[in-house]
Amino acid sequence: MEHFFQLFDPESSTYTYVLADPGTRDAVMIDAVDSQFPEYSKLINRAHLTIRYVIETHTHADHVTGAGALRAVTGAKAATPLPCGVSPADLQLEDGAELHFGREVLVAIATPGHTAGSMSYLWRDKVFTGDALLIGGCGRTDFQGGDAGTLYDSITKRLFTLADDTLVYPGHDYKGDKSSTIGAEKAGNSRLANRSREDFIRLMGDLNLPRPKKIDIAVPANRQLGLDVPQG
Amino acid sequence: MEHFFQLFDPESSTYTYVLADPGTRDAVMIDAVDSQFPEYSKLINRAHLTIRYVIETHTHADHVTGAGALRAVTGAKAATPLPCGVSPADLQLEDGAELHFGREVLVAIATPGHTAGSMSYLWRDKVFTGDALLIGGCGRTDFQGGDAGTLYDSITKRLFTLADDTLVYPGHDYKGDKSSTIGAEKAGNSRLANRSREDFIRLMGDLNLPRPKKIDIAVPANRQLGLDVPQG
Repeated sequence: MEHFFQLFDPESSTYTYVLADPGTRDAVMIDAVDSQFPEYSKLINRAHLTIRYVIETHTHADHVTGAGALRAVTGAKAATPLPCGVSPADLQLEDGAELHFGREVLVAIATPGHTAGSMSYLWRDKVFTGDALLIGGCGRTDFQGGDAGTLYDSITKRLFTLADDTLVYPGHDYKGDKSSTIGAEKAGNSRLANRSREDFIRLMGDLNLPRPKKIDIAVPANRQLGLDVPQG
Repeated sequence: MEHFFQLFDPESSTYTYVLADPGTRDAVMIDAVDSQFPEYSKLINRAHLTIRYVIETHTHADHVTGAGALRAVTGAKAATPLPCGVSPADLQLEDGAELHFGREVLVAIATPGHTAGSMSYLWRDKVFTGDALLIGGCGRTDFQGGDAGTLYDSITKRLFTLADDTLVYPGHDYKGDKSSTIGAEKAGNSRLANRSREDFIRLMGDLNLPRPKKIDIAVPANRQLGLDVPQG
């Protein structure tokens, strides 16, 4: 029976992850998307999973989380990074927090910068980096408390110090890539590799990206675990 | 891009594994089956793999290896356990041998008992146990230098001393199970858990299994990496 699943929401190009104890089938879901709920239900039944935690890497601006709905149906606890201020969550995660499911453990690593509350999660040989570190790139830093210097420090001091063969599973990919490694990103990430903190801040400041289409709906909804969606 | 593949030969219920460096795409194949060669070719092309090593956990009695054919096509080196005496192999592996592919490393662990030359291989959080340790069981010990006491020692002293959360990927499964963990097998393997060496030897001696149908073809063929198959 499989114990690791990488799911994809095509509308927002979001990756959702399901991590299970291969023996007990206790599981954690990272960054569930509300519109994919029917797919998750099927997977949970097919793979005989008991979802213990639904967790978020940050307060997303591009999709509404499925965490609240999954909590209601599965009895899982919702866990979000403390600085995100998601008051309905059951657990407020700080740097170094451990979540135990079956005989497995997931460790929170604070990686602010894309948003002020962004966290990554380390499990076995895999790190789930949300929108901090992407494959060949990184998250934008121009809203929700984002800060380019902070993101540079998070990536270079907290993520690039993990073992080179640690597998990187990001919150999005727009080119069909599924995973990378810390070693590959250190060597080849076009925004980070061989770039100074000052250069990175300048690069991120010059991006001039459009405002996310869903931000005014998604962010307030996600502060309520997706349970109270404003009508757009 | 995926970096780990578990393939299945339905005729012999054999699992074949492909392990890749997620960055460089250098890869290793464990226990290839000759009749599945077309499937392997498709996978190698689709996943952009460069096969560096084709390796065997032991000299199989139930299927003919695809190692020789894969070596001829891919340029991979064939590596087999030294005590198996497969003279056409490029590398003769002893306990503790390391195979490097890209930035990845695989370590050989001698686990004799099913056959005199049986080896397991450790990679990342996974151990490939061949027919030494199966999910909920173990390989038979009544031919090819098999010895029940030796197998008990291999499993309890070499495999059960790995971390409990190490994933166990066996050489076969006949019930559809795909993986287990060292912790689950220590706790629940019906042949090994809470059983003394003497009990295990008695149990294995009482099995009275039929002679494998293909042994007279497969074993001589596999001693030549599957390149010289006797006509049955």
